[in-house]
Amino acid sequence: MTDMINLELIKSISRSSPTKIVLLVIDGLGGLPNPQTGKTELETANTPNLDQLATKGICGLIDPVGPGITPGSAPGHLALFGYNPVTCNIGRGVLEAIGIDFDLQPGDIAARGNFCTVVYAGLVIDRRAGRISTERCAELCQLLDGMVIEGVKLLVCPVREHRFIVVFRGDGLTPDVSDSDPQQIGVAPKEIAPLNPPAEQITNIANQFIAQAKVILDKHYLANMVLLRGFSKHPQFPTMADIYKLKPAAIAGYPMYRGLAKLVGMEVLETGTSTEDEFATLRHNYANYDFFFLHIKGTDSAGEDGDFDRKVNILEEIDKALPNLISIEPEVIVVTGDHSTPALLKGHSWHPVPILLYSKWCRPDKVNEFSESACLFGGLGRFPATQIMPLAMANALKLNKFGA
Amino acid sequence: MTDMINLELIKSISRSSPTKIVLLVIDGLGGLPNPQTGKTELETANTPNLDQLATKGICGLIDPVGPGITPGSAPGHLALFGYNPVTCNIGRGVLEAIGIDFDLQPGDIAARGNFCTVVYAGLVIDRRAGRISTERCAELCQLLDGMVIEGVKLLVCPVREHRFIVVFRGDGLTPDVSDSDPQQIGVAPKEIAPLNPPAEQITNIANQFIAQAKVILDKHYLANMVLLRGFSKHPQFPTMADIYKLKPAAIAGYPMYRGLAKLVGMEVLETGTSTEDEFATLRHNYANYDFFFLHIKGTDSAGEDGDFDRKVNILEEIDKALPNLISIEPEVIVVTGDHSTPALLKGHSWHPVPILLYSKWCRPDKVNEFSESACLFGGLGRFPATQIMPLAMANALKLNKFGA
Repeated sequence: MTDMINLELIKSISRSSPTKIVLLVIDGLGGLPNPQTGKTELETANTPNLDQLATKGICGLIDPVGPGITPGSAPGHLALFGYNPVTCNIGRGVLEAIGIDFDLQPGDIAARGNFCTVVYAGLVIDRRAGRISTERCAELCQLLDGMVIEGVKLLVCPVREHRFIVVFRGDGLTPDVSDSDPQQIGVAPKEIAPLNPPAEQITNIANQFIAQAKVILDKHYLANMVLLRGFSKHPQFPTMADIYKLKPAAIAGYPMYRGLAKLVGMEVLETGTSTEDEFATLRHNYANYDFFFLHIKGTDSAGEDGDFDRKVNILEEIDKALPNLISIEPEVIVVTGDHSTPALLKGHSWHPVPILLYSKWCRPDKVNEFSESACLFGGLGRFPATQIMPLAMANALKLNKFGA
Repeated sequence: MTDMINLELIKSISRSSPTKIVLLVIDGLGGLPNPQTGKTELETANTPNLDQLATKGICGLIDPVGPGITPGSAPGHLALFGYNPVTCNIGRGVLEAIGIDFDLQPGDIAARGNFCTVVYAGLVIDRRAGRISTERCAELCQLLDGMVIEGVKLLVCPVREHRFIVVFRGDGLTPDVSDSDPQQIGVAPKEIAPLNPPAEQITNIANQFIAQAKVILDKHYLANMVLLRGFSKHPQFPTMADIYKLKPAAIAGYPMYRGLAKLVGMEVLETGTSTEDEFATLRHNYANYDFFFLHIKGTDSAGEDGDFDRKVNILEEIDKALPNLISIEPEVIVVTGDHSTPALLKGHSWHPVPILLYSKWCRPDKVNEFSESACLFGGLGRFPATQIMPLAMANALKLNKFGA
């Protein structure tokens, strides 16, 4: 509630100006110390450019949703864009659908799917079916696409690797059902259940789809089963243009983040997937927008795989590419993450995330290293991620004074 | 909303007692580092008395409205007095009217005016007409005072320098209109516009007044035009006596801050305008009240003028006068500002403001210097300005235990 009042407040004082803001999101940035060295991934990585930017800028730690709360990618990003991640929650299915430019129609329900591996007793042993190739995913989706169950058409589309979406197209469908994805291995996929009486129709349809998919995929080990989650409808949020009077662009290699950016009204730019590619896209489009969201996925994937060293390497690669960003001299640069993904936990976590804000007007602190332990003493303190946008806007001199 | 719940809570546990609280507000206190020295105005100033008080007390940083939000004087002060600065927003016109002891009547609408300078094409080149003298302002106000337009009487009264008020007295007037002040130079004054249908009457009257003022002032360059803003009606807030059971007094040289103090039920004391004068007023009236709000304006004016050195000098003057306050030994002394006004930005800013709280019961921290960078590590941390009053009340032992 407070955050929505805050958005109304920001909207009432925001103004358009030629200054530019770059929000660099290093997915899963925060980590935990390696027991052998006592240093996190970010503290281990050699990052002279980030450290220099931290020295000139002001640092702190953000809570994407709240202390103790481990954010999914959607709430993590919504918070970074200034939206209340609790009240503006959106389903994964919708997010994935938008991210692959699927033409969702009013009334469509979308769910996110994983191809997965089950063994003889029906227990999941790999929630990602060995991360099959995107091509293989597309072949398998063709096998499942186009069913009609109880008069509802089911559209199955590949996303990337083991990921796909199922769109349920029919009259009067509601999305309030539980997931079949158990989010752990060693157990069976769950039966989908309705969360309220009107959701019984889609519950039956989804469970029939899963049953048929199991039969169809039987011979396609490792990808011999599907897991569904995040049943959802397309939400309507105020756009960043509405709230901040920005002309925002998104540069993201992975569909979900493009989808998320679209949901808040960003224009999604064509880009390659490497950090170098993304910075090149930024330079190429720099004149045409005044806000850029750059998303780097590799750190999160490495963290989820429990690969401490790969996460360190990717952080060093980002640091090497950073002069490409700094040299174009945006008025405001923010570097942070949507959540922590410590390699030790092999997944998203609740730990606060380092943030660095650089502008001519940032009131620098004494922090001279971009790391979890240094940011703890930063001038921004520890604060909710939803406050990043007002801070960035203020530093870009894009907010009028509030009140007489 | 949260803050209003908080006020209810404080009200339920506050108690009257003989202890005294002094809230010293150094307007626009916070600053930004001088690029040549890396030190802010407060860090540059030699302030041994403030530093000693910081050593004995507990320090921190406040956000008057919220991170990134640049407060106007009214929300900045309302927050210091414990009122939600967003929900308790008040118009500038009312504030200025109260500040000059104008006897606002029910139904009156007040607007704040500036005499300004326009050039041949009608473009504003100085929003303050060279800061004309208060005497000159009074002469010009007489030329504009007393018009009757569409049956509504217009009263025009000088405030100080280029500032004046227009009060619209008539039946059924509403204040919901836009400003004519464009808040920047190089553009024409704006046409006043209604924000809803009932406001069309005052819109027409205000625009006719401006048109007539333009004709009347034509020969009075630099003050050859007016800008109006902050059309508003008198709001009703709970008083500080209601909430805190205090008997509060305000000592402020400048009308707006006296007006603001009156709005929350403070008694406004007669005073000279220098810091020495204000401390003398405090000593003279010390026995009769248990809460004193002292307001010092010079720091903000120096910041707004971009005069780093003058702001430093005024801070040093305040420090020299401080023993006059300390020697009367109030149980609680709070020193802070209503917002930052960095000389480098020549205006109010969003940066958090240093705060120092001294009492026998304050649990001192390690901060031994009153400055932005030292307060960052203070025991109060960084917190919303609305929490200052509960803290001051607690340190004055004026709050009962909450709950059984």
